[in-house]
Amino acid sequence: MNKQTLIEQIKSKKSFLCVGLDTDLTKIPEHLLAEEDPIFAFNKAIIEATEDLCVAYKPNIAFYECYGIKGWEALRKTSEILPKSCFSIADAKRGDIGNTSKMYAQAFFNPEVSGLDFDSITIAPYMGEDSVTPFLDFPGKWAIVLALTSNQGSLDFQNFSNAQGKQLFEEVLDKVKTWGSDENLMYVVGATRGEAFLKIREHAPDHFLLVPGVGAQGGSLADVCQYGMNKDCGLLVNSTRGIIYASKGTDFAERARAEALKLQQEMQAQLELHGII
Amino acid sequence: MNKQTLIEQIKSKKSFLCVGLDTDLTKIPEHLLAEEDPIFAFNKAIIEATEDLCVAYKPNIAFYECYGIKGWEALRKTSEILPKSCFSIADAKRGDIGNTSKMYAQAFFNPEVSGLDFDSITIAPYMGEDSVTPFLDFPGKWAIVLALTSNQGSLDFQNFSNAQGKQLFEEVLDKVKTWGSDENLMYVVGATRGEAFLKIREHAPDHFLLVPGVGAQGGSLADVCQYGMNKDCGLLVNSTRGIIYASKGTDFAERARAEALKLQQEMQAQLELHGII
Repeated sequence: MNKQTLIEQIKSKKSFLCVGLDTDLTKIPEHLLAEEDPIFAFNKAIIEATEDLCVAYKPNIAFYECYGIKGWEALRKTSEILPKSCFSIADAKRGDIGNTSKMYAQAFFNPEVSGLDFDSITIAPYMGEDSVTPFLDFPGKWAIVLALTSNQGSLDFQNFSNAQGKQLFEEVLDKVKTWGSDENLMYVVGATRGEAFLKIREHAPDHFLLVPGVGAQGGSLADVCQYGMNKDCGLLVNSTRGIIYASKGTDFAERARAEALKLQQEMQAQLELHGII
Repeated sequence: MNKQTLIEQIKSKKSFLCVGLDTDLTKIPEHLLAEEDPIFAFNKAIIEATEDLCVAYKPNIAFYECYGIKGWEALRKTSEILPKSCFSIADAKRGDIGNTSKMYAQAFFNPEVSGLDFDSITIAPYMGEDSVTPFLDFPGKWAIVLALTSNQGSLDFQNFSNAQGKQLFEEVLDKVKTWGSDENLMYVVGATRGEAFLKIREHAPDHFLLVPGVGAQGGSLADVCQYGMNKDCGLLVNSTRGIIYASKGTDFAERARAEALKLQQEMQAQLELHGII
């Protein structure tokens, strides 16, 4: 999905919600464990209940990989039913030397080789340019590079500063953007510090940002929009636990929809407030 | 495998060679493509030809993941035949927020869940402490954290320096070592700059280092040993292409053995030179 189509989807659905599919067998409703593929059955129900309210889905690859071949099969089946109206994100945090990143790109972007056809993949930037650019060689695909994450450990290295006070995450934004464009690069920016978006937007005014950390991790949607929204919206705000684990009963899909609807309505209000719709 | 056993294996085999299993269908001998599982057939032949000459095997996970379910199955079967006398490394460059790293740890360390039972996994440190520590919660398992890599892009961020001239890779060495010990943490340090090991050893005198970049990437084994070897050896030097792709003919395993033997002999000389054997 290209940038223009993503913006159109946001305006049409009045939402910039990304639903995280961190599907954990210990957290899904027990009645689903009797299914042949409980992870896929859960994902299918969640997707059907939320697809008109969100513009992106983000399976967290660890939650599939941990079940080995079965998990990989559940991921493949899930990727096949992701709606065409939604941007798909393989949340994989990959990144390695050039010839290896090329193989990871095949894994997530080339369905003839791997069975998977995601629009984008999340990338860890530590290894530099040749670890990122192989993902940009696929027309229409995106690399979403970690800049400032929402977890506790994010401050261990991302705030490491040079003599001029420039922090590592700023250096990442500045260097990475020279390797592609805002048509094939996004950044991960955690929602836990709204005012940090001011600094992010100094370095990356036009890029879309994938924003985890709203909800369970404590970030405020209004703050993120105040400091991070640009003229195209420029945000994909992810929610996982608050939506997919809203209930462990047979009403899990209904309850997931209700939570997604709350967020979509808040997002619609923000899009209106900022004159985007 | 614990540190003491690894040191004993190094002394007994007179080798600190790690063989990389970056098994690429476009590079293996053509006659193997007729096999039911060409990747596994290739790995099995390489392992049988080299296991007495090396102390570690390192499958590069991208080369399996790119083939989806089939690749994952080849990885599982390969992991089952890795000899007990060798340290096994899942070269996966994983790392995510705490609950997700926990799932990645299950993927590579818990055979009951995933089918895989590696001794160690390579980790990208960008997300900080909670992205690394879940891998340290498994007794007898290791996290091998990227410090200074051997690729061209390594200088993009790893050399980012603070006001005191400390570089990011030094900050990584210093912080990460407080999260575990030299009994469950190693670092990746590229061989392309031998003298860089001097600085690495200031920060991590006792840790084992996993060293890619000897051979195809241009690093010198003598330099690595001069600057990087410690009293326990403290090095696992990886070679991939020079060994596994020594021939594309039916003699590929023999030729792989010959190349591994050359390296083992050079390593034996270094171990003797440094008084370790």
